[in-house]
Amino acid sequence: MALIVQKYGGTSVGSVERIEEVADKVATFRDNGDDVVVVVSAMSGETNRLTGLAHGIMKNPTPREMDVLLSTGEQATMALLCMALEKRGYGARSFTGGQVKILTCSTHTKARIQEIEGSRIHAQLEQGNVVVVAGFQGMDEHNNITTLGRGGSDTTAVALAAALEADECQIYTDVKGVYTTDPRVVEDARLLASITFEEMLELASLGAKVLQIRSVEFAGKYKVPLRVLSTFEDGPGTLISLEEDDRMEKPTIAGIAFERDEAKITVAGVPDVPGIAYKVLGPVSDAGIEVDVIVQNVAADGTNDITFTVKRADLEQASAIAQSVATSLKARELLVDRKIGKVSLVGVGMRSHAGIASKMFKTLADEAINIQLITTSEIKVSIVIDEKYLELAVRALHSAFDLGDPDYEKQSNN
Amino acid sequence: MALIVQKYGGTSVGSVERIEEVADKVATFRDNGDDVVVVVSAMSGETNRLTGLAHGIMKNPTPREMDVLLSTGEQATMALLCMALEKRGYGARSFTGGQVKILTCSTHTKARIQEIEGSRIHAQLEQGNVVVVAGFQGMDEHNNITTLGRGGSDTTAVALAAALEADECQIYTDVKGVYTTDPRVVEDARLLASITFEEMLELASLGAKVLQIRSVEFAGKYKVPLRVLSTFEDGPGTLISLEEDDRMEKPTIAGIAFERDEAKITVAGVPDVPGIAYKVLGPVSDAGIEVDVIVQNVAADGTNDITFTVKRADLEQASAIAQSVATSLKARELLVDRKIGKVSLVGVGMRSHAGIASKMFKTLADEAINIQLITTSEIKVSIVIDEKYLELAVRALHSAFDLGDPDYEKQSNN
Repeated sequence: MALIVQKYGGTSVGSVERIEEVADKVATFRDNGDDVVVVVSAMSGETNRLTGLAHGIMKNPTPREMDVLLSTGEQATMALLCMALEKRGYGARSFTGGQVKILTCSTHTKARIQEIEGSRIHAQLEQGNVVVVAGFQGMDEHNNITTLGRGGSDTTAVALAAALEADECQIYTDVKGVYTTDPRVVEDARLLASITFEEMLELASLGAKVLQIRSVEFAGKYKVPLRVLSTFEDGPGTLISLEEDDRMEKPTIAGIAFERDEAKITVAGVPDVPGIAYKVLGPVSDAGIEVDVIVQNVAADGTNDITFTVKRADLEQASAIAQSVATSLKARELLVDRKIGKVSLVGVGMRSHAGIASKMFKTLADEAINIQLITTSEIKVSIVIDEKYLELAVRALHSAFDLGDPDYEKQSNN
Repeated sequence: MALIVQKYGGTSVGSVERIEEVADKVATFRDNGDDVVVVVSAMSGETNRLTGLAHGIMKNPTPREMDVLLSTGEQATMALLCMALEKRGYGARSFTGGQVKILTCSTHTKARIQEIEGSRIHAQLEQGNVVVVAGFQGMDEHNNITTLGRGGSDTTAVALAAALEADECQIYTDVKGVYTTDPRVVEDARLLASITFEEMLELASLGAKVLQIRSVEFAGKYKVPLRVLSTFEDGPGTLISLEEDDRMEKPTIAGIAFERDEAKITVAGVPDVPGIAYKVLGPVSDAGIEVDVIVQNVAADGTNDITFTVKRADLEQASAIAQSVATSLKARELLVDRKIGKVSLVGVGMRSHAGIASKMFKTLADEAINIQLITTSEIKVSIVIDEKYLELAVRALHSAFDLGDPDYEKQSNN
């Protein structure tokens, strides 16, 4: 007997058949006596179809009307899911963001949730109904339809779970949960039973993109127990827990994230004066280019090397900007490396365990992998290397830190 | 400087290109200084697509959720039309039925409008914006989405025009207006400049299905000047006027409606006692069969003949019922005519002009067309004849009552 908020994404509700499967899953929770609130996305492809119609009219569609248009996608899904539940004999009622109501600010296409009115949902749950809510959308104080931006359905689910004081928020997706690293790179990557919010944030932002980072922040802030699990395969998934102490055994490292397709730019030999980092990086971010790692080192001769990484797709534009900055600052030279990758070890256990970084560096040295950059945070160590060694580095570290699934051999022998 | 409510149906907004054309049309009214409120339907095909999804889940979808689902169609159109207007530099704001708000009863899939709140629309018009409203939908007192049933967008437009005290309600469709009869049958059928509500009701129910009959009733009741005109061709269309005196020249007959595919059943020789009509027709209507003309005549022998017509598609079922009734009433015989048609003269002028009916009968006699049944109302005379003479009868009457377009010869010589 628990109150559970479940979120199903576009692939999980991508067809009438898939919606029927979701209804079956919801039904098992009802049969178990749980109260269920379901948050749905638009059927996969629908948002693109609607966006295509809008772009057939104008390149930059009016944001207010874009929200009116896109919000129909989730509305259609929620009605279909209610029908599928009713067919199975389960009472179900659908509500748009506005009907709930989910009050947001007025920033169309990327509104932020301000308040959620839980009374209507609670009343329906008390009557024994499943409540199905359109994800990704809300309503501002003037009754205008707003949307939370792509992926906003996760945020809707977490915010609803917080407002309703749900026992758990379950995000159904097409993976079984969060792994120690990408199973496509490391065969024996292990499904994590639990992970802390902080670790999840570092892993998500570093490439293990299972959950929208905004919803993880939100869940952490409002202490909503969050679980990631698969729509298509049974299993407990991964619980994103409030406290690291929840774990029976505390592994030092939770997982290894990595990022391909990055490039590195170094502006070498600039004057070591205050404001120099801003002079180099300001123009880059002004151009809307996302900068990842930034490292600054003062050389023995009193000049400065500033190195940063960008997505490879942005390299041409970023290096042109950097070149013009380098010229105006009379920098000694501009160095560009087109093909680098980043590997990060993440784990709250790092805080109290010395030697993680040195073990990491030794492991890479044993494989003769040269480290180009190092950055660290409280619960993360990231290194930048030549992209061609990326997979080797991930596998070596995964093995060195004993992250492998002990049952892996057994499974593959079945 | 007028306040105009315009309604565009599914074909008129059937593609992005069509929506752009509608925006052009709306723009000409704005340029002329008019305030415009536009009511839109779902893009043609969209309602069928959504219905198909619902039927993929259940045969009789939950009415509440069907409304949630179908209402997305108009919502998408209204957003796209606003974008097209904004692109042209015209301020535009879209509103769902619930946002307006259009309050309805709670009878899902065929709700009736109870009240319309005009303040939000007036405020937008005062700011110089075009207001685009989703047709066909409203919201009940509990904030549930409702729909008015198929064709409900016409009703939305008329109801909005009444609530806003608009100067005119324009229904854009794929015909140029209301004709004296079907131009496919009578080549020189004339486009009517105006017609009264009563005439329009009789013509609409008799087969000249240009407008939803419910919206015509509504417009008549609230004295909303209604105009039917073409989205695709310029022209004044047909004004459905409040008073017959509005017309400069009062023709006796407004138009000729006709109905094919009917069948006739006569239960002959039943006792002439009170309640006999109910005994015959009660079981037919209980079976959900729509009965059109009903004629009863007492014969000289004191027995009764009851004749009625039904759609040909319903004949088999209706005659089986009639046979069983005839047997139980000991009727003399049951007569069935599979192929009959109905022709009706409609005109408010009939009230004050004697001789319309006799002129009609003489015209048909001159063509050797045998009249099988006659029924009359205040502004209508209907006759039932062998279906094979239907077109001949319509052409002969159209000519006898001088309904032809005087410019027709000229046009066809162009």
